Amino acid sequence: MTWQDDIRAAAARIEGHVQKTPVVTVTGFGLGYPLQLKLEQMQHTGTFKARGAFNTLLSQDVPAAGLVAASGGNHGAAVAYAAHRLGHRARIYVPEMAGPAKVALIREAGADLVVVPGAYSDALEQALAYEAETGAMQIHAYDAPATVAGQGTCAMEWEDQGLDADTLLVAVGGGGLIGGTMAWLDGSRHVVAVEPETSCALNAALKAGEPVDVEVSGVAANALGARRIGQICFDLAQSTGADSLLVDDDAIIRAQAALWRETRQLVEPAGATALAALMSGAYRPAPGEKVAVLICGANVAPDPLQQRSF
Amino acid sequence: MTWQDDIRAAAARIEGHVQKTPVVTVTGFGLGYPLQLKLEQMQHTGTFKARGAFNTLLSQDVPAAGLVAASGGNHGAAVAYAAHRLGHRARIYVPEMAGPAKVALIREAGADLVVVPGAYSDALEQALAYEAETGAMQIHAYDAPATVAGQGTCAMEWEDQGLDADTLLVAVGGGGLIGGTMAWLDGSRHVVAVEPETSCALNAALKAGEPVDVEVSGVAANALGARRIGQICFDLAQSTGADSLLVDDDAIIRAQAALWRETRQLVEPAGATALAALMSGAYRPAPGEKVAVLICGANVAPDPLQQRSF
Repeated sequence: MTWQDDIRAAAARIEGHVQKTPVVTVTGFGLGYPLQLKLEQMQHTGTFKARGAFNTLLSQDVPAAGLVAASGGNHGAAVAYAAHRLGHRARIYVPEMAGPAKVALIREAGADLVVVPGAYSDALEQALAYEAETGAMQIHAYDAPATVAGQGTCAMEWEDQGLDADTLLVAVGGGGLIGGTMAWLDGSRHVVAVEPETSCALNAALKAGEPVDVEVSGVAANALGARRIGQICFDLAQSTGADSLLVDDDAIIRAQAALWRETRQLVEPAGATALAALMSGAYRPAPGEKVAVLICGANVAPDPLQQRSF
Repeated sequence: MTWQDDIRAAAARIEGHVQKTPVVTVTGFGLGYPLQLKLEQMQHTGTFKARGAFNTLLSQDVPAAGLVAASGGNHGAAVAYAAHRLGHRARIYVPEMAGPAKVALIREAGADLVVVPGAYSDALEQALAYEAETGAMQIHAYDAPATVAGQGTCAMEWEDQGLDADTLLVAVGGGGLIGGTMAWLDGSRHVVAVEPETSCALNAALKAGEPVDVEVSGVAANALGARRIGQICFDLAQSTGADSLLVDDDAIIRAQAALWRETRQLVEPAGATALAALMSGAYRPAPGEKVAVLICGANVAPDPLQQRSF
């Protein structure tokens, strides 16, 4: 089995459970050339992560105790949603510091939710205890083959929709989405991995020659702030020759604002990070080079409709 | 010349000036059947109105004095944007009561903007005086052939993109967008005109047998609150046999929330009004009837990024 075989199998498995997300070509953002965007933030629960969650649950035997995860964010919401839709129990331990918007997102997705005082490590401790006690299954957020294959269906779907680009820019956290993208494309298109300067696990790993721990902070850290890149992603980045580059928080915020102002797409900072590499000049396409950007997440806080005035 | 000829000509004229907006099929909103959405709120300045504005400016001689409009909303923004892009002056008189978000939208579009103390009628008075004094040109927001033909390019584009529906639901204010839709389709698909109960100019006109004045209020009134339906729209609604129905503000707010929750599309109340007709049961498709909804506007207030907390 090649990665492409795995991804094709994943796509067949999750069809009907995930949203086929639209593609649009926009000339704007001060760039002077057309840009193809895939609006993957329209996916169920607001990020691509539903793809990997469904693929995992549909390709493995799920114990009667169901799923367990420790997550204060998008992965927890996707696992909760997929479990709920497939009729499995899901216990999600959420660190209190995740904030009310993320807690609401996960609760809304249908999970049995436990808010744990403190930080992620406190939530993880309780999740591990629950797993040991009940036999519930953990789903890795990014560094597992079924997760990566599920996320890879996004690039496969995009090519089915007529992806017309030499180069794809993709934001990187733990490496699930870009891992799946690299796995599907297998070097057939140029992939540029974009990370915040302050959450740069892939960039640091490529410099060190192996995954290493990094400190994480900044506006996109609640989605992209993996302390260590996944081994699967790291290996694919080395074998397929993906580029890695960094953007600062100001560039991310400017790209987020431009996506709303110019296309009325409201995304979270992580969802604007790949575009930030173009707008900031961190990546400059060659003349005639066709470029595409994967928009990957929209779980902004607070809920934008809480403040509405009409 | 038929309407279809006019709309084809308009499409050729405005190509490259307007955004081709994406289409997505979603199963959700508690409906139990798939729904095709066209995300026309991704159009420049956040509504379909850029289509009619560009068609008007590109099909007529624009005087040296440029354009003038009185508008506290989406039409003013579209006129300002189109004029700016085509190198024409545009003076927009905005009533102070439009609020800071709409004022910012129009200013951002590049207009020479005058905020007029008071209501719309005060702004209109100054706009008429400016027109008389300078010879600047007014663009009608909905009841002019070039405006209707421009808005009709949206339905033409949708058919080019593979519109797969027996029935289209479209929100109605003054009737420009639905007028163009009916003009393009010419009875070939069922068109359902959806209005708020408290801004129902088309519904009242169809009952009266002619356009009549109505009072306007409610959550969508700043976009759909025309006091009288355009004659062009009224005539097309009668000749093509469009259905007209009403939804209340609660249904609109629920549809707006569902679009964000289920698809991460943040729209203004007017942009959710057509969907509200399905979610509320005001329109119930027959078994097997395929349904599509035009999402038409996203100029929410306040700016959702002003409140961000990351």
